[in-house]
Amino acid sequence: MEGQWLHGSNTRCTPSQGQHGALGPYTAGSSSSASGPGCRRCPGGRQSRVLHREHYGFLETMAPHLAGKALVDLSNNLKKDMYPEANAAYLQRLVPGAAVVKGLNTLSAWALQNGLLAGKQVYLCGNSAEAKRAVAEMSTKLGLTVLDKGSLSAARELEDFPLQLFPEWRLPLSVAVGLTAFFFFYLLIRDVIWAYVEQGKDISYRITVSLGNKVFPIVSLIMLSLCYLPGVIAAFLQLYRGTKYRRFPDWLDRWMLCRKQMGLIAMGYAFLHAIYTFVTPTRYSVQHKLISLVVDEMKNNKTTPFYFDNTEAWAQDSFYMLGILGFFLYALLGLTSLPSVGGSLSWREFNFIQSKLGHLTLVICTTHGYLYGWNKFLRPSTYKWYTPPGYMLCLIVPSVVLVLKALVILPCVDRTLTRIRQGWERTQPREEMCKATNL
Amino acid sequence: MEGQWLHGSNTRCTPSQGQHGALGPYTAGSSSSASGPGCRRCPGGRQSRVLHREHYGFLETMAPHLAGKALVDLSNNLKKDMYPEANAAYLQRLVPGAAVVKGLNTLSAWALQNGLLAGKQVYLCGNSAEAKRAVAEMSTKLGLTVLDKGSLSAARELEDFPLQLFPEWRLPLSVAVGLTAFFFFYLLIRDVIWAYVEQGKDISYRITVSLGNKVFPIVSLIMLSLCYLPGVIAAFLQLYRGTKYRRFPDWLDRWMLCRKQMGLIAMGYAFLHAIYTFVTPTRYSVQHKLISLVVDEMKNNKTTPFYFDNTEAWAQDSFYMLGILGFFLYALLGLTSLPSVGGSLSWREFNFIQSKLGHLTLVICTTHGYLYGWNKFLRPSTYKWYTPPGYMLCLIVPSVVLVLKALVILPCVDRTLTRIRQGWERTQPREEMCKATNL
Amino acid sequence: MEGQWLHGSNTRCTPSQGQHGALGPYTAGSSSSASGPGCRRCPGGRQSRVLHREHYGFLETMAPHLAGKALVDLSNNLKKDMYPEANAAYLQRLVPGAAVVKGLNTLSAWALQNGLLAGKQVYLCGNSAEAKRAVAEMSTKLGLTVLDKGSLSAARELEDFPLQLFPEWRLPLSVAVGLTAFFFFYLLIRDVIWAYVEQGKDISYRITVSLGNKVFPIVSLIMLSLCYLPGVIAAFLQLYRGTKYRRFPDWLDRWMLCRKQMGLIAMGYAFLHAIYTFVTPTRYSVQHKLISLVVDEMKNNKTTPFYFDNTEAWAQDSFYMLGILGFFLYALLGLTSLPSVGGSLSWREFNFIQSKLGHLTLVICTTHGYLYGWNKFLRPSTYKWYTPPGYMLCLIVPSVVLVLKALVILPCVDRTLTRIRQGWERTQPREEMCKATNL
Repeated sequence: MEGQWLHGSNTRCTPSQGQHGALGPYTAGSSSSASGPGCRRCPGGRQSRVLHREHYGFLETMAPHLAGKALVDLSNNLKKDMYPEANAAYLQRLVPGAAVVKGLNTLSAWALQNGLLAGKQVYLCGNSAEAKRAVAEMSTKLGLTVLDKGSLSAARELEDFPLQLFPEWRLPLSVAVGLTAFFFFYLLIRDVIWAYVEQGKDISYRITVSLGNKVFPIVSLIMLSLCYLPGVIAAFLQLYRGTKYRRFPDWLDRWMLCRKQMGLIAMGYAFLHAIYTFVTPTRYSVQHKLISLVVDEMKNNKTTPFYFDNTEAWAQDSFYMLGILGFFLYALLGLTSLPSVGGSLSWREFNFIQSKLGHLTLVICTTHGYLYGWNKFLRPSTYKWYTPPGYMLCLIVPSVVLVLKALVILPCVDRTLTRIRQGWERTQPREEMCKATNL
Repeated sequence: MEGQWLHGSNTRCTPSQGQHGALGPYTAGSSSSASGPGCRRCPGGRQSRVLHREHYGFLETMAPHLAGKALVDLSNNLKKDMYPEANAAYLQRLVPGAAVVKGLNTLSAWALQNGLLAGKQVYLCGNSAEAKRAVAEMSTKLGLTVLDKGSLSAARELEDFPLQLFPEWRLPLSVAVGLTAFFFFYLLIRDVIWAYVEQGKDISYRITVSLGNKVFPIVSLIMLSLCYLPGVIAAFLQLYRGTKYRRFPDWLDRWMLCRKQMGLIAMGYAFLHAIYTFVTPTRYSVQHKLISLVVDEMKNNKTTPFYFDNTEAWAQDSFYMLGILGFFLYALLGLTSLPSVGGSLSWREFNFIQSKLGHLTLVICTTHGYLYGWNKFLRPSTYKWYTPPGYMLCLIVPSVVLVLKALVILPCVDRTLTRIRQGWERTQPREEMCKATNL
Repeated sequence: MEGQWLHGSNTRCTPSQGQHGALGPYTAGSSSSASGPGCRRCPGGRQSRVLHREHYGFLETMAPHLAGKALVDLSNNLKKDMYPEANAAYLQRLVPGAAVVKGLNTLSAWALQNGLLAGKQVYLCGNSAEAKRAVAEMSTKLGLTVLDKGSLSAARELEDFPLQLFPEWRLPLSVAVGLTAFFFFYLLIRDVIWAYVEQGKDISYRITVSLGNKVFPIVSLIMLSLCYLPGVIAAFLQLYRGTKYRRFPDWLDRWMLCRKQMGLIAMGYAFLHAIYTFVTPTRYSVQHKLISLVVDEMKNNKTTPFYFDNTEAWAQDSFYMLGILGFFLYALLGLTSLPSVGGSLSWREFNFIQSKLGHLTLVICTTHGYLYGWNKFLRPSTYKWYTPPGYMLCLIVPSVVLVLKALVILPCVDRTLTRIRQGWERTQPREEMCKATNL
């Protein structure tokens, strides 16, 4: 074990070109580590010996020469579960005398060669501590941060890393896409098709901007409230069970695990809503409407044409103010979701931001929604084809979440919940005893 | 000391629920580390034995069994300074034979169980290097990054970590809130109340948006200049003292330490100012004013109604351009304040961004402020009730900072300052000698 | 070697004051590490002994006392290549018996003293592993993350770190400045000067905002396409050569290395373009034009004054929608460029974002550009002085990139390229043999 490992990252494909090569281990002479990531073309054919998993079998014949040496498997597969066992485990089985280390498979040769990897975290696993230390030392010299993932049984996990594609974003994205599609078609029918059928007007140009600017805030508010709904459900479940020592149901656990992603998607939609709002006054149709208003006004020669409605001004300005504050808080929540910012917060700070400021954001955005429809609520013309407008539908979930949250923070409920979360249990004296006596 | 530690994070409350349990140490059989964060309910009552600090006393009876074992204290208190000594120190006193390690108290069981902790930094302290290494190894296996904080005397510091709530933000936030309140009431009196008293007009709707859009830029500019004021004060202090080897007064040190936070608050206010500006043209009152202008114009049938004022167009467009550039630079400064971005900059780069670009931002935003009032300065109607308008007040501090900074970068002053900062001292030959001879 | 190192960071200048002191090594008694960063003023003249490189010579006389001790050189120079050898190498030559460790030179004493360095990465290098370990241990206790850069021959690299000023941004910034200048003058001539010469109108006020809002999107789109051009050039080069094992030409390598910076500059310009657009409706000249339109309309008393053009509304709203989506994707790409976000993505995720979403952004922004000029293309008035408008020029590069990219992803081409990138070579059987036989 004299620092001999297999080095092959210099033949990996470039990261910008979307290919995963199924790269196998390299064997190398005792000086391979010194040659480092510079050798790309193996002029004498000495160093760059690529082996795909399919050809590992051939290494069996080399087993005697490899005995006692560290063998780095940096191969990747083209898709998950292609083979019954991990490449590295297979290699170890073929060459039992060598110390196989799985790792560095998440690096690209091109980035390595160009020094783009400073501080990047890489994973290693293997059964030989000595071999892992040798590989870790080399990696550290390359500027990488090494994380030991344990024995070779973790190799499959490491081989799956480069194949992951946002697993934790799947559920939130599906919810977002579903809600977007539903509200898009709902509003398309209520606005554009209704106007065409009932009034014979073609306002189809509204599909691109006006409709978007209704769908985005609606989905944003619902997604934001879906962030905070599992928290109150969990609280009520704990209150009902009288203990915190029972696992939540799986669906609730999964839901709670993707709250961050839900919040970020909600922020993305809020961002789109904000920009759509900002460009509104420059739109042709909006300017046309404004001009038509003036011209009609003049032509009809009304005497008191432009009564300034103070209530309307108050309502609309408050509506804007709440929207802006809500967006500001959204941005703050998003900022603290960044790994580097969130990681530098203490637990209490993170909790303050994500729970206190998060609920404040929900309150402000919900009020923003209520203010939008404050004077349209009782107007019959609001209910085209007997359907409620979109903003009413989107206020249901947030209102429910806020009412439930208000119940949870009532002093009497809060006290019980705090005791439960500190370990107190209501109806299970056996368990309490277990704790007191079993030490 | 065969890798036996106390493992109890699986009964911590979830991070989303705002509770700090006062959790005590766990004792565990020799296999506790293997059971890991999966066991939540201790079916046989064997592993999950929670002890609050109040019950530590009972561990005294166990002392013989714990001798020579690593004992992890992951307890937290509900508030600071609840007890005269740190929980871990108290525990060590009770069980002198065990090797108490304080740490992992900043983790939540729920996050640990769900693998949300990859790369999170945790702190350890303890008197036994061996015990610390054992705990550090386990933590590394869990994907945590361990930072050794030294002997057990650091335990109190670790116990205070989860209770911190933005200590470094207190002073900047107080200043910001104070300035905001002052300017809000000042402008409320000058604008809304003045109009009501003197002209009998109710323009109270302006409170939400118009007033906000005056207060935010004012406070933003003042906060930004307060970022750069301590730097020039420090420079003048060094020039006056003729040395850099004397401590700054405490108030200046504290001020310099919260410059980053002041800058970020200034950026937040600038962000609000920008959004308020963007929504302005969609506001009811603004559109009403525009329409009224046209209608009045038409009714009165003026002949040359809309003379295009080229100077006005130039001034206003320059005003916007400077505002946009200033906001862009603000965003750039904010970006480089992110830990992950700032950390990847070299010292000279960071200095270039935060000092050169920072002062440029101040120059641009101050000019933006001057341009706002360029043609209102000498109009008597500007001075309602003999008070200057808000934008004039807010230009005082930035102007002073820029003048002082201009003095500092004068070649002759700059040369002296550079020498002082390289270690040269003006009037203290004794010190110079001390350096030359004392080696 | 009993943990004795030289400790001098407490006399470094503060990072806010833009000075690099040429600081030399400190010698210290055996207790210097304990005194730590607290001592600033050396009351008894015992510890803070600053030595600039110029005075290193004097250490030669101390050599016997320093033998076997670790000597930390934390000096910096005022500019690159001031001296023929690194300060640390010079020091080692002077005191051959001591174990010189270069490092910590990127820290500032002020930040160190105020605890602002938690987690900051520092570099060490030196020939003695033992001395490096001692310094690394002390650094870890200070909360720093240490990265060993190898032997003392790396000292020059470490000394150059604090002097770097965005080396990887030079090329992209030059391209951006060049393009900006070219398009600024091109549009200045076509718009402002043309109007003055041909129509006698002074529209010079447009320089600040209108012109900027043309230059920024143009340069942004070109920079974005320049991000993706080297990728397709590389693909065609690999197809032509039939192998991936030959180095790209240097200019292509350099270009590929600054794609991230080019993308970020493109994003900055897109950001400016967005804000310029948002403030457009509040501008004096825009409002003046709107009002003039209405007034002229009324005065001339046309009968069908405001025909609503449905096609125009569709085109303009689609134009806005694409612009907003493009900007949103830009923001997403920018977010994943943050070190902390990008670092937490798997290779496939990063590739998905930067390649798939990146090309989608380019498609959307290019379509945004085409829609801008959809109905002006064939109008003769578009070609003032026989020159094409700016938006036409800026569409050339993106269109070429997209056509080339479309060719690359044709199934037949893509298949060959994938094989090449997996290691297959077309015309070099000798090499294949080399691989098969040489193990």
